[in-house]
Amino acid sequence: MKKSVLRKYAVLIATKGINVQKGQEVVINADLDQPEFIKILTEECYKAGAGKVTVEWSYQSLAKIHYRYRSLKTLAKVEEWEKAKYQHAVDVLPCRIYIESEDPDGLKGINRRKMAYAQQKRYPVIKPYRDKIENRDQWCIAAVPGKKWAKKLFPDLSVNQAVEKLWEAILMTSRVDDDPVQAWKNHNEDLRNRCNWLNSLGIEKLHYSSSNGTDLTVGLIRQGRFCGGEETSLQGYTFNPNIPSEECFTSPARGQADGIVYATKPLSYEGQLIENFNIRFEGGKAVEWHAEKNVELLTKMLTMDEGAAYLGECALVPFDSPINNSGILFYNTLFDENAACHLAMGEGFADCIEGFEELGLEKCRELGVNDSMIHVDFMIGSRDLNITATCFDGRQVPVFVNGNWA
Amino acid sequence: MKKSVLRKYAVLIATKGINVQKGQEVVINADLDQPEFIKILTEECYKAGAGKVTVEWSYQSLAKIHYRYRSLKTLAKVEEWEKAKYQHAVDVLPCRIYIESEDPDGLKGINRRKMAYAQQKRYPVIKPYRDKIENRDQWCIAAVPGKKWAKKLFPDLSVNQAVEKLWEAILMTSRVDDDPVQAWKNHNEDLRNRCNWLNSLGIEKLHYSSSNGTDLTVGLIRQGRFCGGEETSLQGYTFNPNIPSEECFTSPARGQADGIVYATKPLSYEGQLIENFNIRFEGGKAVEWHAEKNVELLTKMLTMDEGAAYLGECALVPFDSPINNSGILFYNTLFDENAACHLAMGEGFADCIEGFEELGLEKCRELGVNDSMIHVDFMIGSRDLNITATCFDGRQVPVFVNGNWA
Repeated sequence: MKKSVLRKYAVLIATKGINVQKGQEVVINADLDQPEFIKILTEECYKAGAGKVTVEWSYQSLAKIHYRYRSLKTLAKVEEWEKAKYQHAVDVLPCRIYIESEDPDGLKGINRRKMAYAQQKRYPVIKPYRDKIENRDQWCIAAVPGKKWAKKLFPDLSVNQAVEKLWEAILMTSRVDDDPVQAWKNHNEDLRNRCNWLNSLGIEKLHYSSSNGTDLTVGLIRQGRFCGGEETSLQGYTFNPNIPSEECFTSPARGQADGIVYATKPLSYEGQLIENFNIRFEGGKAVEWHAEKNVELLTKMLTMDEGAAYLGECALVPFDSPINNSGILFYNTLFDENAACHLAMGEGFADCIEGFEELGLEKCRELGVNDSMIHVDFMIGSRDLNITATCFDGRQVPVFVNGNWA
Repeated sequence: MKKSVLRKYAVLIATKGINVQKGQEVVINADLDQPEFIKILTEECYKAGAGKVTVEWSYQSLAKIHYRYRSLKTLAKVEEWEKAKYQHAVDVLPCRIYIESEDPDGLKGINRRKMAYAQQKRYPVIKPYRDKIENRDQWCIAAVPGKKWAKKLFPDLSVNQAVEKLWEAILMTSRVDDDPVQAWKNHNEDLRNRCNWLNSLGIEKLHYSSSNGTDLTVGLIRQGRFCGGEETSLQGYTFNPNIPSEECFTSPARGQADGIVYATKPLSYEGQLIENFNIRFEGGKAVEWHAEKNVELLTKMLTMDEGAAYLGECALVPFDSPINNSGILFYNTLFDENAACHLAMGEGFADCIEGFEELGLEKCRELGVNDSMIHVDFMIGSRDLNITATCFDGRQVPVFVNGNWA
């Protein structure tokens, strides 16, 4: 990909993505796939005002080896210096950039039970730090091509051609055109208008139905609101947490989901695909699930902790979204979640509560925002998905008809 | 390079290099150049018994950007979590593997003054931790090809061919043959015999002379000893700190060096080359120096701190060493220092003092082991270098004649 185009993409992430402020720290998490791009991104963060940029490299191929050879004890332990590093993040609130490029099948064969156990043991230690950072920092997830990811999407091309083709797909769906910063200003405005309309309705619950069997009712929180595109941190800085992003989303009311929902795309979770699955809810909780492939991984996911069986997000995305129209299944949630309406299991978003700045995290959870160590999106949008809102004033308002905005 | 050969090399580093013990932590420092090899090395460390292996990736290309954009203040600061990480290293004494692959010219154009200032500010904070680790841990420096490094050595080859050729040179000089572990057992025994002979002489001072103008006398420490190849940590574990290694070396007496010495190979320091230089010593201290290229970098090096102007090492390597005979100038000290006799400016080795385990670091320094934040080797071996020992009993013993062991 041309360096001048990559530089535009880097500027987009630094300025509209995290919107780094003068003197702020930035931490970039990246795999080893595109170091040249990470170099450009580092430089653009500095040019945008960053006081210190740190790159934390990871290498997906090592994960399986670690989980194979390390003991549960060493995997579960959070060292004192790691705690000190989390405390640093609480004190300094660095902007975080997550650059994804992983092989969707990269963790195939990993010891899942060991992994889940270690994550569960580490989580209570990390959670207090995470809670103190949540909603206060600016962050952005974006993507670059990895070789294996590209070959999975375009198996008939050479590695170099596949990487180039994936670059094109990423940049197109991320609106990296002549002036991506202006494009994102316009796009953020569009999403804001959609959200304003939804919020003006005063929705009590959403009913999803589709010919695939989906028949689900999800209750919303009275003080909740739909968000989309640009967000604002508690420090008052705007940022775009996802590039790309096509969704208007909210945090549903914990305990209010009944019926069954069918996934319409495979779910890539921990480097593996869960395919053709459905989940039945009772009183908000997933009580029964089936999958044609990797059902045991779905079970692990839904039982990671108490909150993993409850919904954390309802997101509305037209079936005719640019990503869906690209015809590409990315095997990556950042993209695939923006191809269609989706739900998420696990952690909800406190900042979807009106006035969450004053209420605080605990109060938001009392109001119905779910709490969990996981947050996993899965796609439920289809060509004939209908979504009807029942409002607190009793009105029935069509929100989606035949997969698109009503 | 064939995977089976790389695996032998990895086994060599894990077992003879750091000689990792059951349950020990291992930290691998590596650039992004050869992730596949780092994966193999990680696995072989686990197979050899490591309880936890961490890879700390770095990317040389980022250094220039950081030093360009960051303030002196942020560059000089050691964060609390970094101190906690050093403390972890003091407590746990992880084995350290340093895998070198950097471009010898990779830091050309970097802001040297800023870099030196930051290093000088950080050093007093880090030093207490480093002193507590020194001589207690097992460590090993080895190399893998980087693309730019390979192209510098073999500019007429394609990148892939150059990388392959550099692999061959690294593996050949590192004795990675059919049974590299046995080859290193034999090699360590050879070096031990040489050192035993030197130590039996009771050398008071060494006189270096060569037709290139070198005429230098260096005093040794009475309690000093020559070491080479395998070392033993204070915990009692053997390890090979350098792969390859051809030298018998000792720590000279601080304050006892007089005369002039001419470098016989370029010195690659902080990613840049200092060429055709000489240093004149008086009372142990470098008092005058000249270089045809990068004299200001030499000045920076010799003035990093008080101890940087004093010698930290005298190493004896035959001119007909395998590395010198390969005809390759590696532009990397790990190799080039094993091509010829050399000296080092800066930090000396306390473990070159007889009984250093009981004496402790401070006492060793009182005896004449130099202290500095730097340790930089430079080559002085030549075809006609003669080294004559004056022993404490008054004998004159030829040690090197015409570049090789007498």
